[in-house]
Amino acid sequence: MNRTQGSGGGAHFSGSASAEHITARHRCPLIPPRGNREREGIAVHGYTANKDDALKRLRRIEGQMRGLQRLVEQDTYCIDVLTQVSATTKALQSFALTMMDDHLQSCVADAIAQGGDQAQDKIAEASRAIARMVHS
Amino acid sequence: MNRTQGSGGGAHFSGSASAEHITARHRCPLIPPRGNREREGIAVHGYTANKDDALKRLRRIEGQMRGLQRLVEQDTYCIDVLTQVSATTKALQSFALTMMDDHLQSCVADAIAQGGDQAQDKIAEASRAIARMVHS
Amino acid sequence: MNRTQGSGGGAHFSGSASAEHITARHRCPLIPPRGNREREGIAVHGYTANKDDALKRLRRIEGQMRGLQRLVEQDTYCIDVLTQVSATTKALQSFALTMMDDHLQSCVADAIAQGGDQAQDKIAEASRAIARMVHS
Amino acid sequence: MNRTQGSGGGAHFSGSASAEHITARHRCPLIPPRGNREREGIAVHGYTANKDDALKRLRRIEGQMRGLQRLVEQDTYCIDVLTQVSATTKALQSFALTMMDDHLQSCVADAIAQGGDQAQDKIAEASRAIARMVHS
Repeated sequence: MNRTQGSGGGAHFSGSASAEHITARHRCPLIPPRGNREREGIAVHGYTANKDDALKRLRRIEGQMRGLQRLVEQDTYCIDVLTQVSATTKALQSFALTMMDDHLQSCVADAIAQGGDQAQDKIAEASRAIARMVHS
Repeated sequence: MNRTQGSGGGAHFSGSASAEHITARHRCPLIPPRGNREREGIAVHGYTANKDDALKRLRRIEGQMRGLQRLVEQDTYCIDVLTQVSATTKALQSFALTMMDDHLQSCVADAIAQGGDQAQDKIAEASRAIARMVHS
Repeated sequence: MNRTQGSGGGAHFSGSASAEHITARHRCPLIPPRGNREREGIAVHGYTANKDDALKRLRRIEGQMRGLQRLVEQDTYCIDVLTQVSATTKALQSFALTMMDDHLQSCVADAIAQGGDQAQDKIAEASRAIARMVHS
Repeated sequence: MNRTQGSGGGAHFSGSASAEHITARHRCPLIPPRGNREREGIAVHGYTANKDDALKRLRRIEGQMRGLQRLVEQDTYCIDVLTQVSATTKALQSFALTMMDDHLQSCVADAIAQGGDQAQDKIAEASRAIARMVHS
């Protein structure tokens, strides 16, 4: 599940030869390097999320998880614990929605702009992820 | 959010002059006429749903709604009613997921292939609809 | 899933001999006969739903399902259809939440008031139904 | 939201004078002292969760949250991140369902067994928490 290439995010959308060794799955980073994208003539407006924001949100939710443990350790009333569990679940789902929006705006949009079978695969893959979000 | 091209989208529902009276919102049909799309050079693979299928599924869910009324009229045990309500909810969400997949494969893909601001608007609009699905 | 007993709702919570032939599942009608319940000394406050309300809500959701079919027949824009699907899903879930509240206030509360293993079974059964609601 | 009383769980369900200073909300700990409950003649079967299990599950989900941060730091493919977000959301909801089941089996069941207005309040409160779980 991890990306192990050493070249870093900067190479992701480049048209360089080395990019051809990166599999299709790996060509879509969380944060597409916008400079490269624009050089390719693909305008990306409305791409709001970035890696720092994503990490900040995840750290905040991790903090909510530790807060939940404190509530349980202090024998907090079940319903009050459940209220915090629901708030944490909502924060996670909100994070997922932002990430899906970013994914559609970058990875899926790029695949469609490039055309071919890969575009269909990307959309089908996104639809399966949306289904997991709805059913979780 | 609107499709402003004169040639492509306008032809989807008919190809006739009357299609020009269809608002921009209506230019992205549930079932894009694949013939036209292919003539435009946009290959659409994996587009499985069609209007008849959609109507058949909605009619089946309407039947489930009538079945629920019969259960209540017959004083069926609450938990048994609730089991059927959950099955009906799942069927509705499954319908929504198929329609969203179709929407991404046709309307959103078309907007992206055409490029410009409209693509961003379409994706943002789809993301808002995904959020409603997750939170409903 | 249907209740076929002829004696009507009035016998549901009675301690009469005939009630003993009704299985535990059948002793909890959608609309507990409050008169009997009160005669038995089980106060039921806050039981707001009744059969007519439940049927009215289900009929309204059935109407929404027919509205969805009209939208599809008229080639309404996918996102507009999806907005209505989400509204219908929400209405169904709201119906389920009301029915679960009624169930807890009547069937589960009665089982607990009577004590014994049946109370545990009723709560476990309700928890499984809640899980289906959360995951649907 | 925290319980600050020093007397510990043992006093929660007792009929002792000190218990009268504990508000109704505080009388229902995460882990009801079963000894006391049994002395009062309230059999509680099927109460499976306990504080250690709850904490263990929450720590595991906190670990999943840290795993998510690693995935983002390593520029893992969006869809792979989203798969883990959905798994984490499911784990949180599963935790909430177990806690709600425990709450019904202990706090709500005790309130019903004691009778009075408090029972209605407890059920209404549980129903609101169920609604938050369904809509989150």
